[in-house]
Amino acid sequence: MTNRNTRRAGRHFLQIPGPSNVPDSVLRAMAQPVIDHRGPDFPELTERILEKLNRVFDCSGPVFVYPASGTGGWECALLNCLSPGDRVLACETGHFATLWKNVAEKLGLEVQWLAGDWRHGIDPQRVEDSLRQDSDHSIKAVLAVHTETSTGVTSRIAEVRAAIDNAGHPALFMVDAVSSLACSEFSHDDWKVDVTVSASQKGLMLPPGLCFNAVSDRALESAAQAVSHHSYWRWDAMLENNQRGYFPYTPATNLLYGLDEALSLLLAEGMDNVFARHARLARATRSAVSAWGLENVCLDEREFCNSTTAVLVPDNCDADVLRKLILERFDMSLGTGLGRMKGRIFRIGHIGDFNELMLAGTLSGLEMGLELAGIPFSKGGINAALDCLAGD
Amino acid sequence: MTNRNTRRAGRHFLQIPGPSNVPDSVLRAMAQPVIDHRGPDFPELTERILEKLNRVFDCSGPVFVYPASGTGGWECALLNCLSPGDRVLACETGHFATLWKNVAEKLGLEVQWLAGDWRHGIDPQRVEDSLRQDSDHSIKAVLAVHTETSTGVTSRIAEVRAAIDNAGHPALFMVDAVSSLACSEFSHDDWKVDVTVSASQKGLMLPPGLCFNAVSDRALESAAQAVSHHSYWRWDAMLENNQRGYFPYTPATNLLYGLDEALSLLLAEGMDNVFARHARLARATRSAVSAWGLENVCLDEREFCNSTTAVLVPDNCDADVLRKLILERFDMSLGTGLGRMKGRIFRIGHIGDFNELMLAGTLSGLEMGLELAGIPFSKGGINAALDCLAGD
Amino acid sequence: MTNRNTRRAGRHFLQIPGPSNVPDSVLRAMAQPVIDHRGPDFPELTERILEKLNRVFDCSGPVFVYPASGTGGWECALLNCLSPGDRVLACETGHFATLWKNVAEKLGLEVQWLAGDWRHGIDPQRVEDSLRQDSDHSIKAVLAVHTETSTGVTSRIAEVRAAIDNAGHPALFMVDAVSSLACSEFSHDDWKVDVTVSASQKGLMLPPGLCFNAVSDRALESAAQAVSHHSYWRWDAMLENNQRGYFPYTPATNLLYGLDEALSLLLAEGMDNVFARHARLARATRSAVSAWGLENVCLDEREFCNSTTAVLVPDNCDADVLRKLILERFDMSLGTGLGRMKGRIFRIGHIGDFNELMLAGTLSGLEMGLELAGIPFSKGGINAALDCLAGD
Amino acid sequence: MTNRNTRRAGRHFLQIPGPSNVPDSVLRAMAQPVIDHRGPDFPELTERILEKLNRVFDCSGPVFVYPASGTGGWECALLNCLSPGDRVLACETGHFATLWKNVAEKLGLEVQWLAGDWRHGIDPQRVEDSLRQDSDHSIKAVLAVHTETSTGVTSRIAEVRAAIDNAGHPALFMVDAVSSLACSEFSHDDWKVDVTVSASQKGLMLPPGLCFNAVSDRALESAAQAVSHHSYWRWDAMLENNQRGYFPYTPATNLLYGLDEALSLLLAEGMDNVFARHARLARATRSAVSAWGLENVCLDEREFCNSTTAVLVPDNCDADVLRKLILERFDMSLGTGLGRMKGRIFRIGHIGDFNELMLAGTLSGLEMGLELAGIPFSKGGINAALDCLAGD
Repeated sequence: MTNRNTRRAGRHFLQIPGPSNVPDSVLRAMAQPVIDHRGPDFPELTERILEKLNRVFDCSGPVFVYPASGTGGWECALLNCLSPGDRVLACETGHFATLWKNVAEKLGLEVQWLAGDWRHGIDPQRVEDSLRQDSDHSIKAVLAVHTETSTGVTSRIAEVRAAIDNAGHPALFMVDAVSSLACSEFSHDDWKVDVTVSASQKGLMLPPGLCFNAVSDRALESAAQAVSHHSYWRWDAMLENNQRGYFPYTPATNLLYGLDEALSLLLAEGMDNVFARHARLARATRSAVSAWGLENVCLDEREFCNSTTAVLVPDNCDADVLRKLILERFDMSLGTGLGRMKGRIFRIGHIGDFNELMLAGTLSGLEMGLELAGIPFSKGGINAALDCLAGD
Repeated sequence: MTNRNTRRAGRHFLQIPGPSNVPDSVLRAMAQPVIDHRGPDFPELTERILEKLNRVFDCSGPVFVYPASGTGGWECALLNCLSPGDRVLACETGHFATLWKNVAEKLGLEVQWLAGDWRHGIDPQRVEDSLRQDSDHSIKAVLAVHTETSTGVTSRIAEVRAAIDNAGHPALFMVDAVSSLACSEFSHDDWKVDVTVSASQKGLMLPPGLCFNAVSDRALESAAQAVSHHSYWRWDAMLENNQRGYFPYTPATNLLYGLDEALSLLLAEGMDNVFARHARLARATRSAVSAWGLENVCLDEREFCNSTTAVLVPDNCDADVLRKLILERFDMSLGTGLGRMKGRIFRIGHIGDFNELMLAGTLSGLEMGLELAGIPFSKGGINAALDCLAGD
Repeated sequence: MTNRNTRRAGRHFLQIPGPSNVPDSVLRAMAQPVIDHRGPDFPELTERILEKLNRVFDCSGPVFVYPASGTGGWECALLNCLSPGDRVLACETGHFATLWKNVAEKLGLEVQWLAGDWRHGIDPQRVEDSLRQDSDHSIKAVLAVHTETSTGVTSRIAEVRAAIDNAGHPALFMVDAVSSLACSEFSHDDWKVDVTVSASQKGLMLPPGLCFNAVSDRALESAAQAVSHHSYWRWDAMLENNQRGYFPYTPATNLLYGLDEALSLLLAEGMDNVFARHARLARATRSAVSAWGLENVCLDEREFCNSTTAVLVPDNCDADVLRKLILERFDMSLGTGLGRMKGRIFRIGHIGDFNELMLAGTLSGLEMGLELAGIPFSKGGINAALDCLAGD
Repeated sequence: MTNRNTRRAGRHFLQIPGPSNVPDSVLRAMAQPVIDHRGPDFPELTERILEKLNRVFDCSGPVFVYPASGTGGWECALLNCLSPGDRVLACETGHFATLWKNVAEKLGLEVQWLAGDWRHGIDPQRVEDSLRQDSDHSIKAVLAVHTETSTGVTSRIAEVRAAIDNAGHPALFMVDAVSSLACSEFSHDDWKVDVTVSASQKGLMLPPGLCFNAVSDRALESAAQAVSHHSYWRWDAMLENNQRGYFPYTPATNLLYGLDEALSLLLAEGMDNVFARHARLARATRSAVSAWGLENVCLDEREFCNSTTAVLVPDNCDADVLRKLILERFDMSLGTGLGRMKGRIFRIGHIGDFNELMLAGTLSGLEMGLELAGIPFSKGGINAALDCLAGD
């Protein structure tokens, strides 16, 4: 084997399920000089961004942008709408659903936990049953993760919405769309989501540092009643300032520059084309996984995921050894198994600014890595993927 | 007057008291591709940054970096150390001290408000008196703004520290160094500050989007006892992850790239040189203000400010009319009067990546603007400033 | 004096008479990835650039863009139109006119040298006289520098054109507009220029690396006859390729990206506004020079220069000592005296992406530098300039 | 097939044989502000670059850097060393060798043309024979292209050198290393090359816009005697200025910034590692071509090329139809057939900042494209390449 040293030639393949590959033009947009966030030119930027966010979240109400990580978006949703002691129904789909539950508990909420096996999405029937049993409507909100990044399973949010309606339950519907927004079809308004939580570093093709809350009128009404102790995340101050084109405190101006550009790129491609592209690349990835004889974590094809494919390695194999080998040998980062999946899976991110040949490189790296790591598998995943991509 | 259209030639002069002028190399650093925040290369970045932050905050304990605005840093400090119902002593120095007090109240704290006239810094004696009166030590923390951005007054933090010591009071000492860090001398350890709150967009020469908490052992001990409901801001998770070179959730990677570069620039110049430069530019600015016959908001020369000079306009003049004229005519942004100062003052930011000739351009814009706005003043401020700069 | 070290804070003031200050957006445009210069998308870029160049040169014929320095543009013009042994009339206006003459001689041309004093532009009458004396039309071309960068003198090209016409002489008219294009009014077509030579790093607000030849039909006809030995500079290959949107060899793609952006910025401002801005800034600069009691190299006010002001220092003073002091103390680069002007003058560039407050900073640096260097002068140049700028 | 519109997601694959993929850090380096090319800081940049160029060209004499395309480098070499009417021996290896010959003829040189079949490199024996026949040493220079970009054939320059020596002929040895430098082993000094011509946009990983002449003492001596008419390309002025850290006219400063960074990257990787990487990627590419049952233009394995693989399509197929399909469908640019190869071949560039997974994406795009274009071939090239890369 050729000696290799620390300077790695060529592009790093960042195939974790987020942060995703960021377009060059977004990085360059972020390098623009800072402007006065209280000056007369700022509202034009704010308004341009908010108008485009409405199209991407498919909503007509406010979308709030915070200088924060995605986990801040969870906290923001809960603090604004709920008060300590309130009860929420949270659905276990994997590691991130669990983390959101943990946040809820830290905020003093009482969590009813709908346990799951990490290989399926949310069962709408179980949500409906749980809500029907809550005859006094003590449950104030249902928490659902759309795409569970840790497992590559995409829950059927429209059906969960229907379940809530069927139960005739007034709970708010809070959805984490961090890993699904701008990857899979998502409609805040049509699905009557009350708070959609998202973040910048996945389908939005930005570096991390911004989180979002898209909110319904019902959510705003709840916020007027809630009594949690908080200030930074307050929607009321955000709403009032946004309406004039400003923010209640200094916004992350340069990330907003990037957001402005990234949203323009998505809308220029067309959201339906964006979804179709991700679906196409995800399909090709699953073809490769099948051909390798490996198992997708996601067991229900209705819940296949456009943004991430999580793959089980055979028993007695360590997925992290494979990941390390691929990183060192082929300069590609893959996602690790989280929580109970530690060591058992690797996750392939195929989101963001990504295309067919980048995917082919990604799957090639995996095919070589699987062989070099001595993991039992059948060669030919790359061929299955190319057949899929060429035939699509 | 020559017709002017929307494309403004040349550099915008961003002379608000923050965000400040960002070095080109920091903007370019932020345009580097995102890397895996869970990968093996990330700890090197984290450790490099944390080591340099210790030198800039002049502290040996942890400095926590959050993807958030500076106001988030206030909330972070209060939530970690205190519990709802706790009492704090907060010192009114201006608009930002008031905002911090408001945050404390929203978090359920009981605020003892040491009123001020917005033209002086904190009176150490009054702090000592207040603490002495609190014989049962119900005050859990003293909140002090080092440089009050809204007035250009820099409180004598070392003397406030001495006042607390003189009173023999165990309250935590929380200092907002948002506008003073890397502008004026500041020592977290020597001044026995328990939590220093700061942000990226002032002396650190970065775009907004990061806030900081530098914390003492006593603050960490308090955090172990406090019972506020929060998750995003938790120091314990941050500390545990930082020690391994990581963050508890996705950090704002590209702002960290910028931070890494900005800290290197500051340390290459040398912190003492950085302070001396800011002092020199501030002195020249005050020379100009005096020569114009205008009044500095700051009345006590021991409290003159290295980062911002706030200037009163004569009665019957509207400072915002002046600011608007200067922006339109000379493409320079100045700070507006905040709160009770609205319309009565303009503020000159002379922070960040700034030098003599940039200041000369700034003061020239003001001298022309004052004349064009018809504000009564004496010409020659620019000459006084140049004399000062050439003689320094 | 405060200790200063190698890291200079704030912006460098690049006030040489070119390269000029480049807009950030031009630098960012240059950082776009390279594309296939033979691919189907390239012609769109080429055509966009060539269309805008026609507007900036004010011409309808071809403008050729070469990856080369401006001096290459001189050679390009001469090699294409002329043959070794041909005679040209060249007008001495300063250092660059002399260099162009030297190039002509190296190319085997016979130069008739119209000597000048370096403090005036070209005398149209002398051109007319010389041409009238050339009754057999042995002079094949007249070489004129529009703005002589070494002296800050702008010759009256329209009058030189009239002189040629008055003499009824068929010589080609070649004009160096390196330092005048996009600074002072210039019309290739109206002035019946046969070859306009220019470069990227002055009024066009780009880094150096591109030169231009705008050519007339007559110049193209001459090129078809000329027999010089050359290949790189050939207009015929350039013309043929340009017409299809390509270049005969690999173009400097990333400089073309920058050119595309810079031309858009100029045209967005409006060429008349661009000229007016440069005129306004030049006027203010001359006010300062007068107030200092120093002498402008340019003696004829009809020849005052929009892009550069060259200033004589008193006898016994060394302009280079002043320049060095200003660079070290205030981080500003000024132009040196060239050729016979060495040590006797400094040159202030006020071109490119430049505005009022940048000029105020520039003149402030000079006023402080003159004093610190002990050069006899009267203070108050900055005030005269501000009066001029505020009154304009 | 999914509808696709004009915004292409993900990275363009620029797999032409130059310009090559440019590292992000090189693009960012080029976005630094321009500095004074006559100022005291410039020599540091010049010297840093020249020192590194010596290591990359493996020479101890001067390397001259011109703001120009690579074709300018040909002209530069010929004009400096030769005089019109001089005789040169030029070796036909393909399109670029032919173009260089054309340049020589335009410069008035008499070319003895050693015809070739475009599928082999230079035959050293024929060079030796030709020189032996030139008993009066009328041949002043031998012109050889090291890697012929149009065919992907790398001539054995060391053996050509030996042939010249064997013939005992004093002709200068001029080598075009445009497509070989920093791709294949090259030693200006060891191979006693008199002028090495190269350019920025291939192995040096820069955008186009710079060309190079590395010169021997003998070449410098010839230059002192030659009488061609030229000025821009003069080595004497370049040498004299370089020795003081400057350039005789305004250099392309921002391309020099990029060069400085690119050279550092190459040397950090280590030239031997750079060559080994290119060899590895080229080998894998040839494996794919063989597996596809397609024919490499290069017929002699001693002349296999590290930077480009040119592939014949079967008779009755049009390589340009394939290239167009691949560009439209998979956003990858491949090299076209030039001159007599038009339509018969496509060329795969695997140079510059390039690695295994980028190559896998490239070959995947080809494998899909060949199928979609209906070109008779055997699938499995990608597998052969991965076997090669994984086994290497």
